Amino acid sequence: MLKHVRKLQIAVIGYNTDSCTDIASNAAYEVGREIARAGAVLICGGLGGVMDSACRGAKENGGTTIGIIPQDEFSYANQHCDVVVCTGIGYARDFIVASSADGIIAVGGGVGTLIEMSVASMTKKTIVAMAGSGGVADMYGGKFLDERHTVPIAIAKDAKTAVKTILAANKNGKSQTGA
Amino acid sequence: MLKHVRKLQIAVIGYNTDSCTDIASNAAYEVGREIARAGAVLICGGLGGVMDSACRGAKENGGTTIGIIPQDEFSYANQHCDVVVCTGIGYARDFIVASSADGIIAVGGGVGTLIEMSVASMTKKTIVAMAGSGGVADMYGGKFLDERHTVPIAIAKDAKTAVKTILAANKNGKSQTGA
Amino acid sequence: MLKHVRKLQIAVIGYNTDSCTDIASNAAYEVGREIARAGAVLICGGLGGVMDSACRGAKENGGTTIGIIPQDEFSYANQHCDVVVCTGIGYARDFIVASSADGIIAVGGGVGTLIEMSVASMTKKTIVAMAGSGGVADMYGGKFLDERHTVPIAIAKDAKTAVKTILAANKNGKSQTGA
Amino acid sequence: MLKHVRKLQIAVIGYNTDSCTDIASNAAYEVGREIARAGAVLICGGLGGVMDSACRGAKENGGTTIGIIPQDEFSYANQHCDVVVCTGIGYARDFIVASSADGIIAVGGGVGTLIEMSVASMTKKTIVAMAGSGGVADMYGGKFLDERHTVPIAIAKDAKTAVKTILAANKNGKSQTGA
Repeated sequence: MLKHVRKLQIAVIGYNTDSCTDIASNAAYEVGREIARAGAVLICGGLGGVMDSACRGAKENGGTTIGIIPQDEFSYANQHCDVVVCTGIGYARDFIVASSADGIIAVGGGVGTLIEMSVASMTKKTIVAMAGSGGVADMYGGKFLDERHTVPIAIAKDAKTAVKTILAANKNGKSQTGA
Repeated sequence: MLKHVRKLQIAVIGYNTDSCTDIASNAAYEVGREIARAGAVLICGGLGGVMDSACRGAKENGGTTIGIIPQDEFSYANQHCDVVVCTGIGYARDFIVASSADGIIAVGGGVGTLIEMSVASMTKKTIVAMAGSGGVADMYGGKFLDERHTVPIAIAKDAKTAVKTILAANKNGKSQTGA
Repeated sequence: MLKHVRKLQIAVIGYNTDSCTDIASNAAYEVGREIARAGAVLICGGLGGVMDSACRGAKENGGTTIGIIPQDEFSYANQHCDVVVCTGIGYARDFIVASSADGIIAVGGGVGTLIEMSVASMTKKTIVAMAGSGGVADMYGGKFLDERHTVPIAIAKDAKTAVKTILAANKNGKSQTGA
Repeated sequence: MLKHVRKLQIAVIGYNTDSCTDIASNAAYEVGREIARAGAVLICGGLGGVMDSACRGAKENGGTTIGIIPQDEFSYANQHCDVVVCTGIGYARDFIVASSADGIIAVGGGVGTLIEMSVASMTKKTIVAMAGSGGVADMYGGKFLDERHTVPIAIAKDAKTAVKTILAANKNGKSQTGA
């Protein structure tokens, strides 16, 4: 019997509501749109700012969106999440967002985003930073997060390139599911 | 602007691979099928036994399936999960499965299932136990888990009734999402 | 070189502030006292009710107390905790309380306590329920939590007996630490 | 009645066994020793490398050591932990180590250590990096982790200075416990 092959899961991480800029919000929208067009599932932290814009970009282009929120109640999620995963474990949910992605795209962001990039780096996921989106995406784009130099953070000049980078890295069937 | 209304999320919990019976597996398949027919999203622990059968029942009837697994790698999920959430937090993920559900259906199960029922009880979710499915579903169906008597565990004689019970309890828009 | 042998870690679980009775509070105090007299470390959820009374009983008898709280800030812990572990993962911290114990003593309690008993049962820890303390301790004392019948919940008529039961079960050096 | 004032809790983070250098191991030992001499409690991840050396430094100087490990079994902890907290939540336990500290000292380290520094930064804890210890301590010492510039990572030239920096930052009673 043929295995069911799940769709690629791409996480979008970055600024929350309070620190999000228009530039980052627009970039996030485009990243969401390109993820939808590529037929991948958008994974995110389910709250505001970059997460909200990316979800909107995906939903307005026929995509599927999963919000993995820190709280244990649905009401905290942004309204563009198709499915809400209520972790209830606070910001430790950053580990789950990163672990649930085949690849990650960073749009701006502060230390919370840096945590997600670090988890992705620890587990050797492909990480792409959107050039010019500000925050930790621009601070760490093109660099290694530690001296082991295992996973460089790639830089993408636009959303289409960012998504393509992740598709290319996952061509060998990494997205196939279990037993 | 109208809010986007996410679909109802119904969790199916119960026996893992090693302890699952044919009766429980069949019941789980039917529960998955009825969740799909109701247009709800199936949430589960993403592994084998009841989880696998429920996902299969949903997928073969056009449904959507989310597997929230203890591990931090996709490969542990059963092949009928559309989306895999890799928590990496071990069996503490039982909290996330229960918290991410608008209602819960138990099919057989051991102490892990009892934990999920307890979390659902703590957060006052609707819990339905499948009659005759064995394990903790039969041990605790019709009872309260503690002396506070806040949430009784309902008993359903078949899958259609189980799903209907949860739909009825959520009629008042509990499934509407955030800000 | 001789290995450093850590002290036995005994968890006390049960009613939180809002539901704690005088009987349970007194029983918890005595359990804390006996843990201290036995030279073991008291592990608990670090909040009020049974947790507070048990910590007080241990501290007033020269013991050591560890509070593992759901929140990520110290200020939520009761004042009798020597060390506070701020998990920030909400009530999923119940898993950590149970996993960090060589044995567990239940004094009254609701579904939260039942979750901790279930985790302990899943990992085959010794569980003792204080007779007459109310709640899930009396509901489930003397029973198995699921049909696998792996770990029965023992009943103790007083605090000294409860602690002795756990000491006896751990005589074979289970408390020795790693590499 | 006077409140019980818990001791200050200082976390030591850094290289695990596989990447630890002699320089980092020695620095960690001295940091553990100075924490013990200051009468503070040493918090750490409970495993090898910097964690093991710091615990040894504290134990050989009369200190108290708490190991918060990723696994759910005691046997993974190093032998110098007085108390082992078995989280079972994998590397998401990095959040707990950082949240359970009044201040943090970094000795070398890779992305895991960067995660702990980021969590500490997010919650505005005092963070000190040991100069010359390598890894992320040297990469990020003296810098801010994101553009918000809320918490700079201090640099200390020796263990005594590192501990003093944290004591000074906590002089105003931040270590007092709850209700």
